[in-house]
Amino acid sequence: MSKIRIGIAGYGNLGKGVELAIRQNDDMELAGIFTRRDPSTVKPLTEGAKVFRLDDAKNMTDAIDVMIICGGSATDLPEQTPELAKYFNVIDSFDTHAKVPQHFAAVDEAAKKAGKLAMISCGWDPGMFSIARIYAESVLPSGKHYTFWGKGVSQGHSDAARRVEGVKDARSYTIPVEEAMNAVRSGEQPVFTARQMHTREVFVVLEDGADARKVEETIKNMPDYYSDYDVTIHFISEDEMKRDHAELPHGGFVMRSGVTGDQGEHHEFIEYSLKLDSNPEFTGSVLAAYARAVDRMSKKGETGCITVFDVAPKYLNPKSAEEQRHTLL
Amino acid sequence: MSKIRIGIAGYGNLGKGVELAIRQNDDMELAGIFTRRDPSTVKPLTEGAKVFRLDDAKNMTDAIDVMIICGGSATDLPEQTPELAKYFNVIDSFDTHAKVPQHFAAVDEAAKKAGKLAMISCGWDPGMFSIARIYAESVLPSGKHYTFWGKGVSQGHSDAARRVEGVKDARSYTIPVEEAMNAVRSGEQPVFTARQMHTREVFVVLEDGADARKVEETIKNMPDYYSDYDVTIHFISEDEMKRDHAELPHGGFVMRSGVTGDQGEHHEFIEYSLKLDSNPEFTGSVLAAYARAVDRMSKKGETGCITVFDVAPKYLNPKSAEEQRHTLL
Repeated sequence: MSKIRIGIAGYGNLGKGVELAIRQNDDMELAGIFTRRDPSTVKPLTEGAKVFRLDDAKNMTDAIDVMIICGGSATDLPEQTPELAKYFNVIDSFDTHAKVPQHFAAVDEAAKKAGKLAMISCGWDPGMFSIARIYAESVLPSGKHYTFWGKGVSQGHSDAARRVEGVKDARSYTIPVEEAMNAVRSGEQPVFTARQMHTREVFVVLEDGADARKVEETIKNMPDYYSDYDVTIHFISEDEMKRDHAELPHGGFVMRSGVTGDQGEHHEFIEYSLKLDSNPEFTGSVLAAYARAVDRMSKKGETGCITVFDVAPKYLNPKSAEEQRHTLL
Repeated sequence: MSKIRIGIAGYGNLGKGVELAIRQNDDMELAGIFTRRDPSTVKPLTEGAKVFRLDDAKNMTDAIDVMIICGGSATDLPEQTPELAKYFNVIDSFDTHAKVPQHFAAVDEAAKKAGKLAMISCGWDPGMFSIARIYAESVLPSGKHYTFWGKGVSQGHSDAARRVEGVKDARSYTIPVEEAMNAVRSGEQPVFTARQMHTREVFVVLEDGADARKVEETIKNMPDYYSDYDVTIHFISEDEMKRDHAELPHGGFVMRSGVTGDQGEHHEFIEYSLKLDSNPEFTGSVLAAYARAVDRMSKKGETGCITVFDVAPKYLNPKSAEEQRHTLL
């Protein structure tokens, strides 16, 4: 059986995560890494892996079954995913929730025109957490769902803190509030403010001569990012930052609290959680599994834009249907 | 929009659970309850609900979109599901794992011949837990999964204890071993015996004059059911049984412990859990959601036998695709 040939477009943390995930899936092979940088400056983790200019990808349509696009949601993906969907089956991890409708529409149009299948917003949130939410809401229609994130590094919040004057480096952690989670687990259906669900903890390396008190005030009052949360700030040295905060752990919890019965007298509770040492490696693993689904569904003639909601679980797993029923049902 | 017309075949605890679930889904209506008993002796929970003889179901094919079959796996479903699949789209909760291949084949043949869609083995295990296992294995191929059940009432083990001479009534609980769960959560991939994963607790009402010590010995040594577990037995009165053990709670945990990275240096952990006040009502709720999927997929022309692995999450949820992406992605 021929392997699924995967292309990786963009070689940052996520691209490397996808590269490592391909090694764990025997039915896949890395067909090439595509970068906007000079290919000779990129050193893949995999011996013998080939690196190409992203602009040259469109000349390699015969060599790639699914292109996994590993750019950022802010500026890369809105441009790259519709463009690459003209030439390839593609998959991305677009996570700017408010802009999903327009991204979906742009990708759908490009993919349909080209007869390709394109999946957007795949990873763990959106992705595995979305799946947890849709199953839970479907089987417990009378109920309420909650998503808690962390403990983990929020790259968006770290970047925001880094933009503050006087900050040399920053790492921001999102921490779920244990009491809030336990209130939901107890069968209540509380209404929370942002502050009641999560706290934030920021580790900051100051520039020489920066005013720590001023930096602290500025971070704590940043709208959208910090002002709605209880924030703890720790000033640390550059060495401590390197030693203690080099990893990108993350995780979280999707809960649904619902009721059944003649009068709603029975509580039913569903909880799905992830505890990840490496956010980009896990996200890369999810993308690899869904690349398998995209390849299979494309071969069945499906085209256009899809999300995780459109994919039957069987397509993610390399086993035969009989083997899936035997080992997993 | 016309509602999905649901038939319920078999009106025990599970049939009642389905009946209550239909009320929570605005796009469904109860078309009829079908029973092997004298219909005049069956009192539905829903005012105005119609009860028919199961044998008359086949004359009502125009009135029902999906028949949910609520019989037992031992003798009812192997006969009823293939038979009813000749006339209806059907769904059952068949859970005798070793016999899935033959049940699948029999139902598949009947449904394909009749142009119907038939889903088997739907509920929470098999069902929601199967889904948790297949997603987790697919996204973390290098890892190991664990299923813990409880704390909850095992009806099979309760029945087994009830068959012991001198036992008037019995209720058997399955309890997961906390230390075993925490070992898995810590990132280890231990190998367990049955005894290390679960304990059993049995509440027994004795017949007048029965020998408690003999009953205890007999239960504890029952092969398949009890001899592989640490079992605690409590002798209680009939009143205590009624007061403290009338409900059917259950639940459990599906965990996958995996690794990613260049050398497997990062642990990634997935956990899915259910805590259910009412096992039959939750199972009925899962069946109702999948009945929606069966109706929709049948209308798209699908026939034959399927399981939860074949169903894309979107089919379970009544919202439009746009609304699903807006509220759940």
